[in-house]
Amino acid sequence: MEGSHVFLIDQNLLPFDFKIFRSSSYLDTCHAIRTMIVRGAGAIGAAAGFAMAQAVLKAPRVGFKTYIKNARKKIEDTRPTAQNLFFAVKRVFDAASRSDNPAKASVTEAHNIADEDADNCRIIGELGSKLIRDGANIETHCNAGWLAFVDYGSALSPIYIARSQGKRVFVYVDETRPRGQGARLTAWELSNEKVPHVVIPDNAGAYLMSQGKVDIIIVGADRIASNGDVANKIGTLEKALAAREFKVPFYVAAPISTFDLNCRIGKDIPIEERSEEEVLYQRGRTKSGRMETILVSSPGSRAYNPAFDVTPAKYITGIITEKGLIKPSHQSIKSLLKI
Amino acid sequence: MEGSHVFLIDQNLLPFDFKIFRSSSYLDTCHAIRTMIVRGAGAIGAAAGFAMAQAVLKAPRVGFKTYIKNARKKIEDTRPTAQNLFFAVKRVFDAASRSDNPAKASVTEAHNIADEDADNCRIIGELGSKLIRDGANIETHCNAGWLAFVDYGSALSPIYIARSQGKRVFVYVDETRPRGQGARLTAWELSNEKVPHVVIPDNAGAYLMSQGKVDIIIVGADRIASNGDVANKIGTLEKALAAREFKVPFYVAAPISTFDLNCRIGKDIPIEERSEEEVLYQRGRTKSGRMETILVSSPGSRAYNPAFDVTPAKYITGIITEKGLIKPSHQSIKSLLKI
Repeated sequence: MEGSHVFLIDQNLLPFDFKIFRSSSYLDTCHAIRTMIVRGAGAIGAAAGFAMAQAVLKAPRVGFKTYIKNARKKIEDTRPTAQNLFFAVKRVFDAASRSDNPAKASVTEAHNIADEDADNCRIIGELGSKLIRDGANIETHCNAGWLAFVDYGSALSPIYIARSQGKRVFVYVDETRPRGQGARLTAWELSNEKVPHVVIPDNAGAYLMSQGKVDIIIVGADRIASNGDVANKIGTLEKALAAREFKVPFYVAAPISTFDLNCRIGKDIPIEERSEEEVLYQRGRTKSGRMETILVSSPGSRAYNPAFDVTPAKYITGIITEKGLIKPSHQSIKSLLKI
Repeated sequence: MEGSHVFLIDQNLLPFDFKIFRSSSYLDTCHAIRTMIVRGAGAIGAAAGFAMAQAVLKAPRVGFKTYIKNARKKIEDTRPTAQNLFFAVKRVFDAASRSDNPAKASVTEAHNIADEDADNCRIIGELGSKLIRDGANIETHCNAGWLAFVDYGSALSPIYIARSQGKRVFVYVDETRPRGQGARLTAWELSNEKVPHVVIPDNAGAYLMSQGKVDIIIVGADRIASNGDVANKIGTLEKALAAREFKVPFYVAAPISTFDLNCRIGKDIPIEERSEEEVLYQRGRTKSGRMETILVSSPGSRAYNPAFDVTPAKYITGIITEKGLIKPSHQSIKSLLKI
């Protein structure tokens, strides 16, 4: 954020084009979150915090409270599953509400959230890197790298840190249909970081595990219930079930801000359903370099597009947070969060 | 087959264009099998039988044996996993070898294989329809309908027969990346048959099962080992693991010709690895109606593309064959095949 503007990498244009989306109002930032110009747990959180600050900056003196309450509701309505969004909006809203200088307080708090996100992800990387042996084959789903956060990422941070320690790693990148965040974003990040990897169809995960080709799975999280159930990108549950079957350790990497104690169990987490066009059409680059959207399904057939699923705590080997590696249980989460 | 020509629906053009591929030689038919102009267990078998007959028709009197042996090898090399291919080629080869009129014998045998395929699929449909209750929600993977066979199909045949009995059904069609046989072929078939359905990302299967939205899963098979392990389209294993977890009955529908007693267990079945381009690129129709191939992954990233996986017998509720519904075990397969 500079002045009242928020600058976001336009993730919808990646991996083919790198452009910065310039948001001049909280409504612009809401649009960016809803349309996935910005996406990923931590990045949504940071963007939502800045959006809330933008709203505070624009709020009229008369009717201030009503204006920022409305804005908060609009920001919260952009993506219903991402816990970091609610966490960040609340912090900035509260900072503005209790300050004599709401503008300054809200901008400071939004920056704090972004800075903390980067710090936490670095610590997650350091802790998680201990789980990665030299020569490890790692599978990941969706994108939980630095694009999805302010820096480092959650699931990819341990990989980056392990590499910086001189460990050799190889990453199987789940394509992650329908939006292709693995094939488009994780593969792009890993290419930038020169981490050896291949893209695999989401269907190939269990097969690779059955062949002993995967040593560890690390994924991110969009929301974690107080019993350790994890909502993450659709398909995560299938990987967790396959991992259990083939005895592959399955880790979730997520900052504390991802926990939602208001959700007692995974069933309490609302699951976003997105447009069927995301399944029926695909966007990409033709050989002549033009961007094109094509229909990849039978004309006239409809689609169903749930964006997340819930992986029960019992299938998760551990959750890597900035405060340590925990077993996913009500007890360990309570003691982690000191409540 | 008419004269020495074989006529095949060009499945690579579906669902956007319906054209018949005309093969004038066994090498043309090999090309059609290898490039998936024709695909699907039974359809590959029938096409391979006709290809073998085409080779017999063209074989010179001098060097006949060598010519048809070479041809057999070339046909068998097109798709390594499909058992029906080997089954059909052997039958036509043997018929030609032991006859005074090899040309006539081979063409007759190839037609027999195709006719038996259609009959067997009809019976599979009748037996399988008993497993489908009125109002059932059915999930299927890949395409095992009439496109994949000579008629009816294996996995879809019970659905078609159930519908013809007046039962209401709803089908969740796994997209089936990377080739999209679900989204492109099964959805197209179901649209033609007016069966209500939606396309889902492969990632969504376990989620739907966890929500109680799937009553039964029926898939086809490319090869079945003598212990009941089933090789089928990549991703089948993930569905089977999820089905077990959420107590959804998981059925395989396949004619007897799919069994390969030379494979004692699933590990003995060779798994075809296909080109990485199938993962990295997608083909489809633009809004202006033009066919276009687009890159859908990060430029420069590689892909890995195993085409099949093996589902262990223990996760399969039953195998629906033209000779009855069996438990997938060495004992029941032995008694089914009367050996």
